[in-house]
Amino acid sequence: MRPITFLVIGVAVLTGVLALAFSASGSGDEHVAPIFDIKLPPDFRDWKLISVAHEAGKLNDLRAVLGNDAAIRAYRDRQLPFPDGAIIARLAWQYVPSEENNKVFGRDQSFVAGAPTNVQFMVKDSKKYASTGGWGFAQFKGSKPDAAAQLNTCFPCHVPIKGRDYVFTRYAPTP
Amino acid sequence: MRPITFLVIGVAVLTGVLALAFSASGSGDEHVAPIFDIKLPPDFRDWKLISVAHEAGKLNDLRAVLGNDAAIRAYRDRQLPFPDGAIIARLAWQYVPSEENNKVFGRDQSFVAGAPTNVQFMVKDSKKYASTGGWGFAQFKGSKPDAAAQLNTCFPCHVPIKGRDYVFTRYAPTP
Repeated sequence: MRPITFLVIGVAVLTGVLALAFSASGSGDEHVAPIFDIKLPPDFRDWKLISVAHEAGKLNDLRAVLGNDAAIRAYRDRQLPFPDGAIIARLAWQYVPSEENNKVFGRDQSFVAGAPTNVQFMVKDSKKYASTGGWGFAQFKGSKPDAAAQLNTCFPCHVPIKGRDYVFTRYAPTP
Repeated sequence: MRPITFLVIGVAVLTGVLALAFSASGSGDEHVAPIFDIKLPPDFRDWKLISVAHEAGKLNDLRAVLGNDAAIRAYRDRQLPFPDGAIIARLAWQYVPSEENNKVFGRDQSFVAGAPTNVQFMVKDSKKYASTGGWGFAQFKGSKPDAAAQLNTCFPCHVPIKGRDYVFTRYAPTP
């Protein structure tokens, strides 16, 4: 064979090896979170509000918790456990003081959502995720899923809230 | 005329006077906010998320800002001024530490939505509310509108934000 042929075969083999390695590490789709095989729901920014929160300390963020229709229905009907298909999204942003608001109020009191940090999801599928309380966990940053290692830490932290089907956030009553 | 007739006429006149007095102070509907004549939108808890915030100090609350479809569209399209029909809702809850979350995290860092305080609305109608930048203001507590006096203080506070059509809250980018 001529050198050029070796080169073509070499590139083809390498491409095949890389493709295999990539598909072994997940679905091969960069928008699918590892382990739990969760796709970024395209419309989550349109979901309804469950509640809001502030985590101080290292996280130092402001958060909104939204739910798809199945999750919102379950919350409002106080249905536990959550039905299969329910998805809860936790969006977070940096916790930043608003100079603009403080100037108007004449006091340093206003904190607003700064740059987005990440969005986490809990997806209910009692069969698929039977070993983790029926919930799959995912985290995305700008539509890119987070590494698998970090997702292994999700469920253990939710175990103490087993009595509320592993869900920390309570539904915020309508003012 | 017999005394009973006087009584009937008297009651009728009194009822008329009361009705007039009541309608002069508003629409006569207890779910309509005074001055700006704004009804509590029945579905505002289902609106989409604009952003979240924390006001410290005397207010000491956590807040979610939601928008009806016209408001959300304007925010996403960066359309200023907001079109007539846009409504922005600011829901607030007491800012309370979550003992439950802190126990799991092993740190005092978690603050969540406690009892609801009130919900405020900005309703865009450039003709009806021409004298206040095209916005009507309302505040409700458990579906009851707040007193007129307090609503007079809304617009002056929003004047410094005229450049963003008098709206403080910026759209929180999707994480």
